[in-house]
Amino acid sequence: MTEVTLVEVGPRDGLQNESLPLDVPTRLQLIEHLHDAGFRHLEVGSFVSPQWVPQMAHTEEVLAGLSNRAFNSIALVPNSTGLKRALETNIRTIAVFTAASESFCQRNINCSMQESLERFQPVIQTALENGLQVRGYVSCLIACPYEGETDVSQVTRMAAALLEMGCYEVSLGDTIGAGTAREIEARLKTLLTSLPADNLALHLHDTRGQAVSAIDRSLDLDIRTFDTSIAGLGGCPYARGASGNVATEDVVYLLERNGYRTGLSMDQLARTGHWISQQLGRPYHARAGLAHYNMQSLQTGKQP
Amino acid sequence: MTEVTLVEVGPRDGLQNESLPLDVPTRLQLIEHLHDAGFRHLEVGSFVSPQWVPQMAHTEEVLAGLSNRAFNSIALVPNSTGLKRALETNIRTIAVFTAASESFCQRNINCSMQESLERFQPVIQTALENGLQVRGYVSCLIACPYEGETDVSQVTRMAAALLEMGCYEVSLGDTIGAGTAREIEARLKTLLTSLPADNLALHLHDTRGQAVSAIDRSLDLDIRTFDTSIAGLGGCPYARGASGNVATEDVVYLLERNGYRTGLSMDQLARTGHWISQQLGRPYHARAGLAHYNMQSLQTGKQP
Repeated sequence: MTEVTLVEVGPRDGLQNESLPLDVPTRLQLIEHLHDAGFRHLEVGSFVSPQWVPQMAHTEEVLAGLSNRAFNSIALVPNSTGLKRALETNIRTIAVFTAASESFCQRNINCSMQESLERFQPVIQTALENGLQVRGYVSCLIACPYEGETDVSQVTRMAAALLEMGCYEVSLGDTIGAGTAREIEARLKTLLTSLPADNLALHLHDTRGQAVSAIDRSLDLDIRTFDTSIAGLGGCPYARGASGNVATEDVVYLLERNGYRTGLSMDQLARTGHWISQQLGRPYHARAGLAHYNMQSLQTGKQP
Repeated sequence: MTEVTLVEVGPRDGLQNESLPLDVPTRLQLIEHLHDAGFRHLEVGSFVSPQWVPQMAHTEEVLAGLSNRAFNSIALVPNSTGLKRALETNIRTIAVFTAASESFCQRNINCSMQESLERFQPVIQTALENGLQVRGYVSCLIACPYEGETDVSQVTRMAAALLEMGCYEVSLGDTIGAGTAREIEARLKTLLTSLPADNLALHLHDTRGQAVSAIDRSLDLDIRTFDTSIAGLGGCPYARGASGNVATEDVVYLLERNGYRTGLSMDQLARTGHWISQQLGRPYHARAGLAHYNMQSLQTGKQP
């Protein structure tokens, strides 16, 4: 059976786009539940300044609380200041992030695309020298919220540069969830002429309901790593109330039902998705998770 | 450009699964908005007994209110009593419904699969003799809520029988939204060895987030007609709070973005989806519609 790796980004990309910041014990509990559900790659926080992203303050405390668990813990690092913080924790992997759009780079990280690579080069090098792994993010795989459709050659250039500098994997983000499955398939086909499928991941937002479909098609191109978010946590910063990251539960249903192995327990995912939605004071709306949760309630006569 | 026909089922399949019954003027307004948005095939009501389905009572009044609009109006007819009611209105098409599962037929229409065909035979014949068109529904394309996975040969048998009796189209329903895109693709491939794609439609529920993906794949098999529901109205009677019919807005985004022509206006769909969600007292959660609505609000500085 083919294995597929899901990288759970709910505790970072999910929570940082929710307006309600959660306290450290709740963030810890979320990560522990997800680890118990079978995740071995988990984004747990961010070393971006808490002034920019208050939801990710105290990432050090979260990591300290996880010191008795062995898994690939990932946290965002925007620059050398962030790296300094990361090196004082037990984090395994730092994630650096840039984009295939000049406007997005400028607005998101205050520099040009080229400058972002130059800025990350020493960060990546120091991280590797200290025994950490580095993961790269390239936003705007399909479109930029400021510029519209992006140029696939820019996606290739940025992803290739990050791999060249030592990232073990580059996660390609359709940041505004603009692409249909066929558009993403077409871009991947171009990218795969020069980049290996094994080093690429897809990071999709379900803003327009196309993410599960895109993952389905990309499996045929041998993409085997996907970023997902429990309960579809995340929202979209560009459209109030809109869907966020593709829900872990929907992707697990797709994969397991089609014979791919994820190592994840839908029972535990649905329970965790339901619980974290309650913590955030919002309805649980990951579709496959909610269906599973409801079926379990029906069968057992009580909440699972 | 390839044309794709969407059959809007929100005013019937959608509303009949919402717990709050809407009054006739609101139901009329919904249908008028959807007609204005470009729909030419609309399920407007049902001649099932109002004791069974109170949400669909007064379908005659709804049809009378639409007498100045020309389009393919569709209403469910369960038996000869329902047909008698239908023949006293200006309805264009009646829809008869059965399933590829004995248990589902028994629980849903109180007869066996074979009896359902025998019961519908004179209904279809009389309808055709009176100049009406007949559309058929076969539920449980993939699975039955009582029996589990269904046998594809039973789906073929029921669909073939309905076409044979004079239905211009048979809509195949994944009633509990169990199928992934690949499972639905596999079933369709089998069905298409004996049935023509032009006479088949897909009626998918998005219970587990796989419906858009399944439509995407079925386009490659030349399926060109899909039932969709504005704002994803409908819920799932077997799982409280779960997603209902696949949202019209998500499917229109998929189709138009990939170069298929639907004749539908996303502006008007998003406005209608937002409005009807308000009428039902629930958040608007059709993803592509909400994203469109929010982008419009952002651009114009006011609600569209």
